[in-house]
Amino acid sequence: MTSIDLAVIPGDGIGPEVVAEGLKVLDAVCEALGGPEIATHTYDLGARRYLATGETLTDADLEDIKGRDAILLGAIGDPRVPSGVLERGLLLKLRFALDHYVNLRPNRHYPGVPTPLADSGGIDFLVVREGTEGLYCGNGGVVRQGTPHEIATEVSVNTAYGVERVVRYAFAKAQARPRKKLTYVHKHNVLVNAGGLWRRVVEEVGAEYPDVAVDYMHVDAATIFLVTDPARFDVIATDNLFGDILTDEAGAITGGIGLAASGNINPEKAFPSMFEPIHGSAPDIAGKQIADPTATIASVALMFDHLGLAEHARAIEDAIESDMAARASAAEAGAPLKRSTSDVGNAVAALVRG
Amino acid sequence: MTSIDLAVIPGDGIGPEVVAEGLKVLDAVCEALGGPEIATHTYDLGARRYLATGETLTDADLEDIKGRDAILLGAIGDPRVPSGVLERGLLLKLRFALDHYVNLRPNRHYPGVPTPLADSGGIDFLVVREGTEGLYCGNGGVVRQGTPHEIATEVSVNTAYGVERVVRYAFAKAQARPRKKLTYVHKHNVLVNAGGLWRRVVEEVGAEYPDVAVDYMHVDAATIFLVTDPARFDVIATDNLFGDILTDEAGAITGGIGLAASGNINPEKAFPSMFEPIHGSAPDIAGKQIADPTATIASVALMFDHLGLAEHARAIEDAIESDMAARASAAEAGAPLKRSTSDVGNAVAALVRG
Ligand SMILES: CC(C)[C@H](C(=O)O)[C@@H](O)C(=O)O
Ligand SMILES: CC(C)[C@H](C(=O)O)[C@@H](O)C(=O)O
Repeated sequence: MTSIDLAVIPGDGIGPEVVAEGLKVLDAVCEALGGPEIATHTYDLGARRYLATGETLTDADLEDIKGRDAILLGAIGDPRVPSGVLERGLLLKLRFALDHYVNLRPNRHYPGVPTPLADSGGIDFLVVREGTEGLYCGNGGVVRQGTPHEIATEVSVNTAYGVERVVRYAFAKAQARPRKKLTYVHKHNVLVNAGGLWRRVVEEVGAEYPDVAVDYMHVDAATIFLVTDPARFDVIATDNLFGDILTDEAGAITGGIGLAASGNINPEKAFPSMFEPIHGSAPDIAGKQIADPTATIASVALMFDHLGLAEHARAIEDAIESDMAARASAAEAGAPLKRSTSDVGNAVAALVRG
Repeated sequence: MTSIDLAVIPGDGIGPEVVAEGLKVLDAVCEALGGPEIATHTYDLGARRYLATGETLTDADLEDIKGRDAILLGAIGDPRVPSGVLERGLLLKLRFALDHYVNLRPNRHYPGVPTPLADSGGIDFLVVREGTEGLYCGNGGVVRQGTPHEIATEVSVNTAYGVERVVRYAFAKAQARPRKKLTYVHKHNVLVNAGGLWRRVVEEVGAEYPDVAVDYMHVDAATIFLVTDPARFDVIATDNLFGDILTDEAGAITGGIGLAASGNINPEKAFPSMFEPIHGSAPDIAGKQIADPTATIASVALMFDHLGLAEHARAIEDAIESDMAARASAAEAGAPLKRSTSDVGNAVAALVRG
């Protein structure tokens, strides 16, 4: 890959601030490692555009984005826009239209980073969240809206095709990790239809990966183990909604979702994959240069990995790790680093340059 | 109330052990406070019965139970029974048939009780989980099962009738508490149909409770706050599945689900309400007399509250609090109490007797 054609969606709130730092580090690593060339194309998508024009994601935008190699997204969401409009009309529309069936969310606790847990030793796991099915399909409806007889439904749609491909991806990931452990999470004692499908698919695909140890956990039990024994997890495979819930909790225990990266991935590269911090637009702190851009920078590393540039990914990950160590020792010395959003980006970029 | 006709379902695994202690404390409090009389009727329901006869809950059982004043349940579940059979055929069948639309789950951290959180100060909140709707309806199905073209659906069904009554209950509970705060949890940015209904109902019912402060949280964000700032919660109102997930996490942060009680309540008393610890049957530790019966004993307190015997409820709660304090001081003195399941029941019963 000698050049990367990158769609950039800064979005709302703190999105533009954190994306600026992601791009800064991206430039630094390409410079340090002698390429590739990066061409960025910025898309005006999100609340500003919606409030001005009523548009969320036009067909033309989508077609244009489809031609790029990857997407870097900051955050979407604004209190002035009705709930669901940008989520379903823009963010989920991209995930679904670009067939991002893997929502990859690594979770790791860096030594010294404050966490709410008394013991956070050894947290290092990967959540493989399904991205194109389940309750996120937008299936369901409302009858007799606004009356005492209203009925509102949400339909979780799950297919053998959809579950198998993401489960297969999760097994391959587990096999490539030292612990080779896969925990699949569902609620098959209540959601017997979808849960039964997940269970059968895990059993079938698992037979092809005899060296991967598999266990199952109900989603409610998983929320317990995430606080009582998070180090037990290696790879978690789960559905769209459960993955959403568990990765926020996982972000919290590892030191805050300001550090949690994600990739919305189409592994076959039929469409560009999209990389974004898992945090939201945080309108209350927007424009103040106080958001932590680390999650966005780490998302850029995931992007390089996806594009086959493992050395670039590694350079960013190492720089983040060094930066985390610097934070920890400053805090330990009683003088916690006070840095703006761009200070953090500068520090990581400098570390990348070495 | 001069007598209580109590259905007892000990169930599977540790169920019979913890139920025995619940009944012990129940007897103690009735003796100490001069009544009421308790007549217990034990039902052979759960894995043993299912494995022997194929029956989960017969119409005759159900009719019989309907005639009781309340139900005390231990735990249901056994690895030899296919997932979902006892959950849907017995536990959820009781909750639905007896119209237990309020699933009440108090969460409190007793000083000195070990918790995975570095700071667990001031945790004291009540989860009001809807119990008869949402994804628990058993609505959905499977087509082309076992083929590469399988489609499995789960339908979340939500009605104005069902949401309003549980939300109204939650507001009344919040109003009766010193902090008068209600947080409703959903995912209305994705589940726009069900989430929109919840939002409108909360706004409408909330107008009748102007002294209750209301806020909203996405379920994923709620899992974060449960570990970073659990003391912020007073009353949480949420749907069936989100309530299931959040209360397990809440159990974990307050010191383990061995302490977490619940009531499946029909506030109008059209049917008997059912009280149960939120933990499962824990087959791995069954019969060893090592399960903590506190959650079951606390569920008996919830039962007395529901039956209008507040003094009885209070006596049990006070005894549990004293027992927790005894545990904490023993642990602090470096000699943690080593007690069997029945030791704990005896200790609490003795405290109740005063
Ligand atoms: C904003 C929202 C639609 C989204 C989701 O639910 O997937 C977010 O919470 C996330 O986890 O990326
Ligand atoms: C056993 C299961 C059906 C049940 C539920 O999901 O409601 C349990 O987890 C609970 O919370 O009481």
